[in-house]
Amino acid sequence: MYDVQKIRGDFPILGREVNGKPLVYLDNGASAQKPQVVLDTIRRAYGEEYSNVHRGLHTLSNLSTEAYEAVRGKIARFLGAASENSIVMNTGTTEGINLIAYGWAMPRMEAGDEIILSVMEHHANIVPWHFLRERQGVKLVWVEPDADGSLPAEKVLEAVTERTKLIAVTQMSNVLGTVVDVAAICRGARDQGVPVLVDGSQGAVHLNVDVEAIGCDFYAITGHKLYGPSGSGAIYIRPERMAEMRPFMGGGDMIREVHRDEITWNDPPMKFEAGTPGIVAQIGLGAALDYMENLGMEAIAAHEADLRDYARERLAGLNWLNVQGDAPGKGAIFSFTLEGSAHAHDISTVLDKKGVAVRAGHHCAGPLMDHLGLSATCRASFGLYNTRAEVDVFIDALELCHELFA
Amino acid sequence: MYDVQKIRGDFPILGREVNGKPLVYLDNGASAQKPQVVLDTIRRAYGEEYSNVHRGLHTLSNLSTEAYEAVRGKIARFLGAASENSIVMNTGTTEGINLIAYGWAMPRMEAGDEIILSVMEHHANIVPWHFLRERQGVKLVWVEPDADGSLPAEKVLEAVTERTKLIAVTQMSNVLGTVVDVAAICRGARDQGVPVLVDGSQGAVHLNVDVEAIGCDFYAITGHKLYGPSGSGAIYIRPERMAEMRPFMGGGDMIREVHRDEITWNDPPMKFEAGTPGIVAQIGLGAALDYMENLGMEAIAAHEADLRDYARERLAGLNWLNVQGDAPGKGAIFSFTLEGSAHAHDISTVLDKKGVAVRAGHHCAGPLMDHLGLSATCRASFGLYNTRAEVDVFIDALELCHELFA
Repeated sequence: MYDVQKIRGDFPILGREVNGKPLVYLDNGASAQKPQVVLDTIRRAYGEEYSNVHRGLHTLSNLSTEAYEAVRGKIARFLGAASENSIVMNTGTTEGINLIAYGWAMPRMEAGDEIILSVMEHHANIVPWHFLRERQGVKLVWVEPDADGSLPAEKVLEAVTERTKLIAVTQMSNVLGTVVDVAAICRGARDQGVPVLVDGSQGAVHLNVDVEAIGCDFYAITGHKLYGPSGSGAIYIRPERMAEMRPFMGGGDMIREVHRDEITWNDPPMKFEAGTPGIVAQIGLGAALDYMENLGMEAIAAHEADLRDYARERLAGLNWLNVQGDAPGKGAIFSFTLEGSAHAHDISTVLDKKGVAVRAGHHCAGPLMDHLGLSATCRASFGLYNTRAEVDVFIDALELCHELFA
Repeated sequence: MYDVQKIRGDFPILGREVNGKPLVYLDNGASAQKPQVVLDTIRRAYGEEYSNVHRGLHTLSNLSTEAYEAVRGKIARFLGAASENSIVMNTGTTEGINLIAYGWAMPRMEAGDEIILSVMEHHANIVPWHFLRERQGVKLVWVEPDADGSLPAEKVLEAVTERTKLIAVTQMSNVLGTVVDVAAICRGARDQGVPVLVDGSQGAVHLNVDVEAIGCDFYAITGHKLYGPSGSGAIYIRPERMAEMRPFMGGGDMIREVHRDEITWNDPPMKFEAGTPGIVAQIGLGAALDYMENLGMEAIAAHEADLRDYARERLAGLNWLNVQGDAPGKGAIFSFTLEGSAHAHDISTVLDKKGVAVRAGHHCAGPLMDHLGLSATCRASFGLYNTRAEVDVFIDALELCHELFA
């Protein structure tokens, strides 16, 4: 039984007030709050077992290394990867996708080669590909969502040409909540020999992910959205692709031997992990993934589907409010504007007075904003600890906005 | 008055035992322990004020952004930078030096151009330059230390030719403890128009640093060695150099506008900070720098000089032990081997039985190991909380090693 009140008790920040009102945190798409077990894990890691990892032999170094390396296996299990050697640990999706851009794409793409992107991508899955456009003449091919925000797999696959070298697509839009059938994209792409990178920044938080079933080549996650510490993360890389990659960042740990005129690399995945990592952040991510798995990803998804349905119904009752995107099976993410002159930033500020935290802006999705003809929206994004009662507070606060700005 | 016993009480891990003995932590060169104030800052940041930074308008986002951005000013003050806009925040020295290699050096260096490195550099300040050698034919020019481990500035400056495009040098060797007169190198290099990158990974921990007085172009630090969280750090970049740099990692925050066929960058230093940063790690680093400044860098340096003198004297009494490097003014870092067949790893293991944590291996300094003709050393590296009594425990444990392996 999914006991949301009990779960809320696990998150210390949810007990606080904002502007004299109980916090209603609906900014999970930007970053999620952390359960006590993550805070306790961090405190224990620093207070009782801390040292640098990998290169030591003393007790603390061994303890630290064991705790850190155990997270690689947790991430592999969480993502359904067949081997933990397919997991490169890093600071999040941005570093993960840059690793693929610099380490895999740049050395093998030429002017005129094509990368297919959806218009819904987050800047983390756009800007690294713009580098290839600017620096080596790679062509970015954009696929637009349907009017309801859906992105049919066939639409992405129709964009494939002989020059297509990569499809880079999100599993869940951080603005529209659209869930993309990335498995269908991967099946079609594989038939044509095109690798697929999936941005799992949102997808891994809300869906039960199995990278082997999806069949993707790259799957990037970011720990701070997964109820883990900021600065934690990982990317799954299919072994065939990992074997094709050159190193990205250089430093300790990713080398085997360093001489004046010669250098050899460590075995993957270490080849792609340079320098002292965010040891304790990553250990904290392990605790966050354990926490989610204890609740059960199916149970979390069911709870969030209920919140989505309830919020969708209540928002539909506000005829002065425009929600962007209503794709079937979408996640509990609602981007909206108010009719009239109210700016998203003003709406966010009013909601904050009622304790409701939403995000306002372009949500790191410039091309989607262009496509929607908007400069900004407000976004309410739900997480595993949100409640129907919070939806009600949110709706009441929106009604106040309407009164103020109508 | 520097009260080391009171200071030790600030570090919870120092109260623990290892193998039934009080922990004697002499692995500070690899990573330092964290004071309670850093742990408390992390707990508070996650438990009371957490949200993503920069792009929000709600209360928690503002609190988080204020706390995070305040660290930029703390780092600037700590390093003596004239402006906090010269500080790029990141995950540590490895990312910092890779930023310079990819963002500044790669676009402006051609085959035959030269980078001067000391043989004492850490892999973090070697491997990124090997990339330029491998990928674009840049020549690495190596400068060897003197027999005592000293690295005279003039020796580095004598290596400058018309093709020299960069000098990259450590301020303090992580193996020998040698302190390099980087200010003299920068003065000489500036006369010849050669930029200088200083690896401050060790120097900033043990010396009172003033980047304006040093006159360097780049100064990299890593938070986990500065008693701050793993995954925190920064690099100082002289404004003229920053203006010459292209972006390194692409993602959110570092852009101004992103469209399908066009992209514009945020102003520096944000241009070089992509994606959600290690928000709380960085806030924790701010607390660590405050802690160090409250003790006073001069007082810390004086305490460590006393430990160095005492340890040097006691180690000199062990005529079966070889210490590598004895440069005048060196830091409290001692790398050593035992005469006979005892391997560094075995020594480390025996010391650990006595509660003494030292590091054994190549210390991420392959070219220096080649130069010394060694495959590995043991290294005892001291920090602000170590004591003369711990030196005695360390010496006793070494004597046990001698008995066991002689």
